[in-house]
Amino acid sequence: MNNDAADWWSTSIIDMQPGEIRYCGYAIEDLIGRVGFAEMVWLMLRGDLPGKAEAGLLEVALMSAVDHGPQAPSIAIARMAATCGVGLQSAMASGLNVLGDVHGGAGEAAVALYRAVAAHVDPEAGAKAELERFFAEGGKFLPGFGHRFHPIDPRAPRLMEVVAEAVDAGTVKGKHLSAAHAVEAELARRKGKTIPMNIDGATAVIFAELGFPAPLARGLFCLSRSVGLLAHAWEQTEQGGRNKGPIPRDTIWAYTGPAPRPLPEG
Amino acid sequence: MNNDAADWWSTSIIDMQPGEIRYCGYAIEDLIGRVGFAEMVWLMLRGDLPGKAEAGLLEVALMSAVDHGPQAPSIAIARMAATCGVGLQSAMASGLNVLGDVHGGAGEAAVALYRAVAAHVDPEAGAKAELERFFAEGGKFLPGFGHRFHPIDPRAPRLMEVVAEAVDAGTVKGKHLSAAHAVEAELARRKGKTIPMNIDGATAVIFAELGFPAPLARGLFCLSRSVGLLAHAWEQTEQGGRNKGPIPRDTIWAYTGPAPRPLPEG
Amino acid sequence: MNNDAADWWSTSIIDMQPGEIRYCGYAIEDLIGRVGFAEMVWLMLRGDLPGKAEAGLLEVALMSAVDHGPQAPSIAIARMAATCGVGLQSAMASGLNVLGDVHGGAGEAAVALYRAVAAHVDPEAGAKAELERFFAEGGKFLPGFGHRFHPIDPRAPRLMEVVAEAVDAGTVKGKHLSAAHAVEAELARRKGKTIPMNIDGATAVIFAELGFPAPLARGLFCLSRSVGLLAHAWEQTEQGGRNKGPIPRDTIWAYTGPAPRPLPEG
Amino acid sequence: MNNDAADWWSTSIIDMQPGEIRYCGYAIEDLIGRVGFAEMVWLMLRGDLPGKAEAGLLEVALMSAVDHGPQAPSIAIARMAATCGVGLQSAMASGLNVLGDVHGGAGEAAVALYRAVAAHVDPEAGAKAELERFFAEGGKFLPGFGHRFHPIDPRAPRLMEVVAEAVDAGTVKGKHLSAAHAVEAELARRKGKTIPMNIDGATAVIFAELGFPAPLARGLFCLSRSVGLLAHAWEQTEQGGRNKGPIPRDTIWAYTGPAPRPLPEG
Repeated sequence: MNNDAADWWSTSIIDMQPGEIRYCGYAIEDLIGRVGFAEMVWLMLRGDLPGKAEAGLLEVALMSAVDHGPQAPSIAIARMAATCGVGLQSAMASGLNVLGDVHGGAGEAAVALYRAVAAHVDPEAGAKAELERFFAEGGKFLPGFGHRFHPIDPRAPRLMEVVAEAVDAGTVKGKHLSAAHAVEAELARRKGKTIPMNIDGATAVIFAELGFPAPLARGLFCLSRSVGLLAHAWEQTEQGGRNKGPIPRDTIWAYTGPAPRPLPEG
Repeated sequence: MNNDAADWWSTSIIDMQPGEIRYCGYAIEDLIGRVGFAEMVWLMLRGDLPGKAEAGLLEVALMSAVDHGPQAPSIAIARMAATCGVGLQSAMASGLNVLGDVHGGAGEAAVALYRAVAAHVDPEAGAKAELERFFAEGGKFLPGFGHRFHPIDPRAPRLMEVVAEAVDAGTVKGKHLSAAHAVEAELARRKGKTIPMNIDGATAVIFAELGFPAPLARGLFCLSRSVGLLAHAWEQTEQGGRNKGPIPRDTIWAYTGPAPRPLPEG
Repeated sequence: MNNDAADWWSTSIIDMQPGEIRYCGYAIEDLIGRVGFAEMVWLMLRGDLPGKAEAGLLEVALMSAVDHGPQAPSIAIARMAATCGVGLQSAMASGLNVLGDVHGGAGEAAVALYRAVAAHVDPEAGAKAELERFFAEGGKFLPGFGHRFHPIDPRAPRLMEVVAEAVDAGTVKGKHLSAAHAVEAELARRKGKTIPMNIDGATAVIFAELGFPAPLARGLFCLSRSVGLLAHAWEQTEQGGRNKGPIPRDTIWAYTGPAPRPLPEG
Repeated sequence: MNNDAADWWSTSIIDMQPGEIRYCGYAIEDLIGRVGFAEMVWLMLRGDLPGKAEAGLLEVALMSAVDHGPQAPSIAIARMAATCGVGLQSAMASGLNVLGDVHGGAGEAAVALYRAVAAHVDPEAGAKAELERFFAEGGKFLPGFGHRFHPIDPRAPRLMEVVAEAVDAGTVKGKHLSAAHAVEAELARRKGKTIPMNIDGATAVIFAELGFPAPLARGLFCLSRSVGLLAHAWEQTEQGGRNKGPIPRDTIWAYTGPAPRPLPEG
C-alpha cells in the first residue's frame, strides 16, 4: 500500500501548480470568456468540451428543473433552514441532501429505462418488454411518468419539442426520444389511459441523448434544483421569520400515541 | 396569527396551478429554449430577466469558480462521502455544507468591501478609509486578496479583462472594478508588496457590478462550486474505494493526549 | 511547513494501534461496561472522566431536550427527508444541520450570559448590568428566556429542582444557578411581567455549572436533539409517504409575485 | 385528501399543549431526573420505557462506538468542516451525513443477518445456509466481520462478554449471540482462517438481542458516532486552522488527466 498522501488522492479533472490551474488540460484563463457554464459542467463531468449545440441542449435540461415550489420537501427545507440562523450554504445543503431515490432519483431511473428500451432492435418491442419486466418485478411508479399535481406537466411537451429540434439539427440521434415515446405509448396501453411524461422523464431523454451515465441524471438535477434552493432560501431570509416550522404556530399536529400516563413504579 | 397553511408559506418566485408553472410570472414553456441557465439563475434571484450581456457576465463568474481540487475541504469531503455508500446528492451536500464564512464567505465580504469603497466620492480615498477601518478593527486577511497557494491567482487577471470589456461595452458601469483596483493598490501600499486579487475578489467585482446583494455572492459561489463537488464525487465513485479517509490507511495521525492509563478506581 | 500527512492531523482524543483503541489514554475494553454514555460524552469533550454525580447531571440535560415535535424545523426536516428516499443518517443530518444560531444557539448564548453575570461580585448587580448591556446593544430576545408556545416551559422548573439538589449534594457550586435566577428576576423587573426560563436557559445552567465552554452547549444540544431527529425520521419511515412537503398536496402557498406575463421581446 | 395541516403531520412520539409536553404519554417533568439518556432513546424509538438492565445494555452499545479517529471519513469531515467557518451543528451534520451503507450500514446488515440465522432451528445450520446464500449472491465483505486495521477489534470480545453476562442475568435471551458465534465459526470454516467480529458485528448482537429493527442499528450508530463528531469538531475548532483539507498544503494530489492543451479552435 502506498503511503504517500499525494497518491492517495488522484484525479483527472484538475491539475494545479502555483499560478496555474488546468481543468482536463485546459488552462482556466483560456476557458474564461470562451466557455459557458453548461460547457464547463460538461467538461468537468466528461473530460472534454461539448459542441455548442450539445451544450445548449444540456443547458435546457438544467434551466427547466430549477424549482417546483415550497410543497417540494427540498425547497421547504431550504426555506425552514433559512429561519434557523445558518448560512445560505447550509440552507442549500440541507435541501439538496434530500434529493434522494424518491425525490431526485427518478431521472436516473428513467435514463436507465430508456437505455434498456433503446437496446432492443425496435423501440415498441423494447418498451413492451421493459415495462413487462418493471411491473412484474413489483414496480409501482414508472420513473419519469405521471405527476400527482399536474395532469400534464407543462415542461415535458415543450422539452420534447426542443429535443425533436435537436434531432432534426443532427445534434443528437433521437434513439432515446423514440424510446421515451414508445414507453409513454406502452404505459397508456397497459393502464388504459395516458400517464404523461413528467419533468424527470423529459430531462432524462436529454441526458440519455447526450450520453450521460444514468447516475449523472441525478447529479445534474441536483445542480439544477440548487438554483431553486438558493432562491427560496434567500427569499425566506429576506422575509425574516425565526424557527419557521412546516405548519403555523398555533396548529398542532395529530397525536396518535398513548394517552397521558404516569411513569411506571420503581 | 393566521392559521392557514397556504398563507404560512409565501413566495414571489413561483406560482403553480395544475398544468401550469410560472416563475416570476413567466410560463415555464415560454422560458424553455429561449432562456439560458444563467438567465434562469438571475430570474430566480432577482425577479426579472437580465439582458443577454449581463447574463453572459454572470455566466463567466459561475464557470470560473467550479473547482480548486482535492486540497479544498469541500471537494475532499465530496470525494470521501462518495466512498461511504451515500447518493451523489449527499456527497454534494456534505461538501456544499462547509462553504461557510471561511471557505465560501470571502466573496460576500469582498462585495461589501467594494460597495463601501464605491460609496466614497473617490475610489482611492475610499480604499484608504475602508482598509484603515478594516485593519483597525483587527481584520487580518482582506477578503478577496492573497492566496496561500498561488502567487498570482490565474483566474483573477483574466476575469478583470472580461469585466473591463463589459465596461467598455456599456454592460456595467465599472464603479466596483475601480473600487477593486483601488483596494489592490492601497493594500500593496500598506503591505509594501503586491497582494494580488484572488478568485473571490474577482468574482465579487462581477457580482457587485451586476447589482447582487452581498450574501448572494456566497450563494452564487455555492452554485458554481457545486459543479466541482459533483464532478469529484462522480470521479471518486467511478474509482471505487470504501470509507476513504484523508490519509492513507497505514498512516496514523499524531496523538497528543495522555499516555495509556488505567481507569480510576471506584 | 510540515509535509507529513500524519502530523497534519493531530488529536488528544483517540490513539490507535492495530488491536488497540484508547480514548484519552483509557483502553476501550476498560471503559466498556464500566462507563456510561454520558460519561463517555464527557471524556471525549473534556479529556477526563467525570464523577458519577456530575455525569448524572449532564445526563439530565441530555435527556430533557430530545424533542419538541414536528413544528420545530429540525424535526420537520428529518420527517420530510425520510420520505425522499435517503438513509436515516441523511434524514438526521439534514435536521441537525439547521440547529444554527437561532434554532440551536440559545443555550450557547445563555451559558455566556450566566458566566458574565457570575463574574460580577453580586448576581443581582451582575444581572442588572448584563441585561442593561444586552438591550442597549439592540438585543431583542434574551437567550434562554421566554417561549412562543409555552407560557411556562414545563422542563425548566423541573430542571432547576434537579440542579438545586445537585447544589445541595455538593456536586456543583450553584453560582450559575444563582446567576440564572437573578437574570430571570431582573428580566421580570424590566419587562413588568415574568418571562420564564425555557429549556435552553435551563440546560445552560447545567452546562455552565459543569464547566462546559459555551459553544459546547450548542454541541450537547445537538447530541440531545439527534435522538428526536432519529425517532421522528424512523416513525415517518414506518408511516411511509413519498416526497412529503410541509403542507397537504392540494393546498397552495400564497404567491405574491408578478401576474402572468409573456417573455420580453427579443 | 385531507386539507388540514394539523392532520398532515401525525406522530405517536410527542404530544404538546401550552405548558405541557408528553413523550409517549409521559409528562416530561415526570421523566426528568428519573429516566436516563439511554432510557429516553429507547422510549423515543420504541414507545415504552425499557427495564434498567435493558437500558444498561443499550448504553454499552452507544458508548462503545463513539469514535474511530481521523482516518474515518466521518470524523475527518467534521474536523475539516470546523476549519471552514461553520457552526458545530454543521460540522457534525456533514460528518453524520456520510454514515451511509458502507460507513454506517454494516450494523444494520449484521442485525438482519443474525435475525435470518436465528430464524433457523439450529444456529450452526442457519449460519451455514445464510453464508452460503450471502456469498452465492455475490457478497464480498460479510457485514460485522473483519477489520482492515485491527487484526482483532478490541471492542468486540469485550462487548460479547457484556452480552454473555446479560444472558446469564436473564436480561436478554442470547439467541442472536449464539447466531453471531455460529456466523463467526462458519466464516472461519469457509475462509480457512478466523475473520473476527468487529464493532458493527458486536453492537448488532446487542441491538438484535434488545429487539430493535435492523435499520435502527444504523440510527443508533449515528447517535453514538455523533459524540465523536462533536468531540473532533470541537478539538479542531480549538486548534484553529483555516480551510484545512485532507493533505498538507504543499502536497499535490496525483493528476492523471490530459496533458496541458489549448482550447479547440472555433
